[in-house]
Amino acid sequence: MSEPGATMTMVVIGVGMVGTSIALAARRAGHRVHLRDRNTSHALVAAGLGAGSVDPVPPNEVDLVVVAVPPDHCARVIADSLLEHRSATVTDVASVKGALIGQLRALVDDEALRRYVGSHPMAGSHRSGPVSGDADLFVDRTWVLTPHRVNPDVDVARVRRLATESGAVVTDMDPYDHDRAVAAVSHLPHVASVLVADQMDDVPAEHLRLAGQGLRDVTRIAGSDPGLWVQILSANAAAVRPRLERLRTAVDALLAGFDDRERLVGALQAGVAGTARIPGKHGLADQVWSEVVVEIPDTPGALAKLFAEVGEAGINIEDMSIEHDQNRQVGHLALLVDSVHESELRDQLAEHGWTVRP
Amino acid sequence: MSEPGATMTMVVIGVGMVGTSIALAARRAGHRVHLRDRNTSHALVAAGLGAGSVDPVPPNEVDLVVVAVPPDHCARVIADSLLEHRSATVTDVASVKGALIGQLRALVDDEALRRYVGSHPMAGSHRSGPVSGDADLFVDRTWVLTPHRVNPDVDVARVRRLATESGAVVTDMDPYDHDRAVAAVSHLPHVASVLVADQMDDVPAEHLRLAGQGLRDVTRIAGSDPGLWVQILSANAAAVRPRLERLRTAVDALLAGFDDRERLVGALQAGVAGTARIPGKHGLADQVWSEVVVEIPDTPGALAKLFAEVGEAGINIEDMSIEHDQNRQVGHLALLVDSVHESELRDQLAEHGWTVRP
Repeated sequence: MSEPGATMTMVVIGVGMVGTSIALAARRAGHRVHLRDRNTSHALVAAGLGAGSVDPVPPNEVDLVVVAVPPDHCARVIADSLLEHRSATVTDVASVKGALIGQLRALVDDEALRRYVGSHPMAGSHRSGPVSGDADLFVDRTWVLTPHRVNPDVDVARVRRLATESGAVVTDMDPYDHDRAVAAVSHLPHVASVLVADQMDDVPAEHLRLAGQGLRDVTRIAGSDPGLWVQILSANAAAVRPRLERLRTAVDALLAGFDDRERLVGALQAGVAGTARIPGKHGLADQVWSEVVVEIPDTPGALAKLFAEVGEAGINIEDMSIEHDQNRQVGHLALLVDSVHESELRDQLAEHGWTVRP
Repeated sequence: MSEPGATMTMVVIGVGMVGTSIALAARRAGHRVHLRDRNTSHALVAAGLGAGSVDPVPPNEVDLVVVAVPPDHCARVIADSLLEHRSATVTDVASVKGALIGQLRALVDDEALRRYVGSHPMAGSHRSGPVSGDADLFVDRTWVLTPHRVNPDVDVARVRRLATESGAVVTDMDPYDHDRAVAAVSHLPHVASVLVADQMDDVPAEHLRLAGQGLRDVTRIAGSDPGLWVQILSANAAAVRPRLERLRTAVDALLAGFDDRERLVGALQAGVAGTARIPGKHGLADQVWSEVVVEIPDTPGALAKLFAEVGEAGINIEDMSIEHDQNRQVGHLALLVDSVHESELRDQLAEHGWTVRP
């Protein structure tokens, strides 16, 4: 058995895109990787890409088994691996975790179950198969570990090491919390996307030509593999059902209040509030913004001059709006910038003679 | 009154982002543009940006009035414009068209209504106000004209000219067809996006950290201005209601069949079929793709070599997958490329000694 920091002997079962990527990252970190797939040619292809070896390995020499098979087969393969490799930690990459533990309890005894540590690396792509494998797939991506209370530290540490060495951002979560979380942030949006896309079936082609980026954004994930998603949604049915029931209730409420302006605007405002809670590069939630307000006289060319000068300063304007003064014939231009540039922008504008609101 | 091709005298009422952009494009095309806004300082700002003049214009000299005010005020301002400018064509930019004609019938006589030609330039941005105006906003964007049967040719021609000179792709549609189209491709996805975003309200922050690009894509449009969207959805209630009723029915059906694998996979497949109907750069519908299948021997480094050689040829691989041969120890790599590059890729691969399936 390996010491912390020593080379691990690993078996990766299932060399699709995720399994191959994990194998490639583990090889790069210096581990011995053995590849298995029920489709032999896939394992050979992954081996050809440098992801590991297809040679057999004595079961007792294995430190870590990574099960990267489709969700439907996950519990059975994890159970088999726990029984075959008596000193190995076994992990998997399935996107549902709590339900899996329930299934495993029926397949293995408590001693074996102690060596199972669930994990969910949150990276994907529309591609599949070993040739889509990429050692950098998990860099800076979230990788959730879902240890349960009976796991010895050594087993959790091995899976954590795999995730860390893959470059992922590791976060620990209770398995059932994890399932509720993905029901909300992944499975509900997936179903909503599918239901909107489905409604395009009776829309004439000349009407579909009016589709903009909004429809494309909302329906993008609806194009994902139904064969995989039926497994994910079925596995997480317990957490997804309440989300869909709430969706139905919300559609009902919206229809009932559609002619009531106040209720309709309330629903739309709740949507805006929801988007503001979602973190990430593409929202404003992770960054702090400052508003700089400048007085704009009613002379032709004033704005053109201002933007030329802001442009010179090389400061990115994230958003802007005009406010107006009820009493005097001036406008107020509000510029939204990254807070780190606020004082620089204020100085720059003042230097050029603009009146900046304090 | 202007001859075809001659300079038009225009009034743009409402100098938000869309009105200012239309004014800027019309000025660039050589027309005389007068700007009006109930907020005088906005009109001055737009004038300062070069969008036109704030001077008054004799009502009878006006050829074309463009009403670019919020949806709630649209009918009233169109009616006032038809009555004030007795020889002018009047158009608007609202995103609901059929309902507007119904409202106008109650406000003006048939003679005046003949000079109203609805239009819907389909370009937007999260920005607002005159400083966001851009003469290129409509370049290559769809601009729908919704003439009704009583419109004289001269009025339709003026609005068509405005759209064409703005660089837009002009398409004609029946006003009520237009409303059904936008209910499906714009208003339904908007409501779905809002309802998904709203459900984030009870999701703990540590769960929201698991959000991926899928949730961000689905909820992006939910961040749009509720004050504008309440007007759009209310104006198009007649066409949006049936879409929301169908959404409710679909959620019900999904919940009822959630434990039935066949029904669940059927719903997911219907979603995939729906996405395939949506045209555009981001789908595959507009382009013709070819699959080139290469035999991959089970020798290490074979794939790396192949991709290096494909890379040299400078051909973009859109997608790929591995198929396997049940009898021999080889894989088959299927490469998806733009059809125009198919024969080039085949030649390149054959030249390097690969076995390409015919």
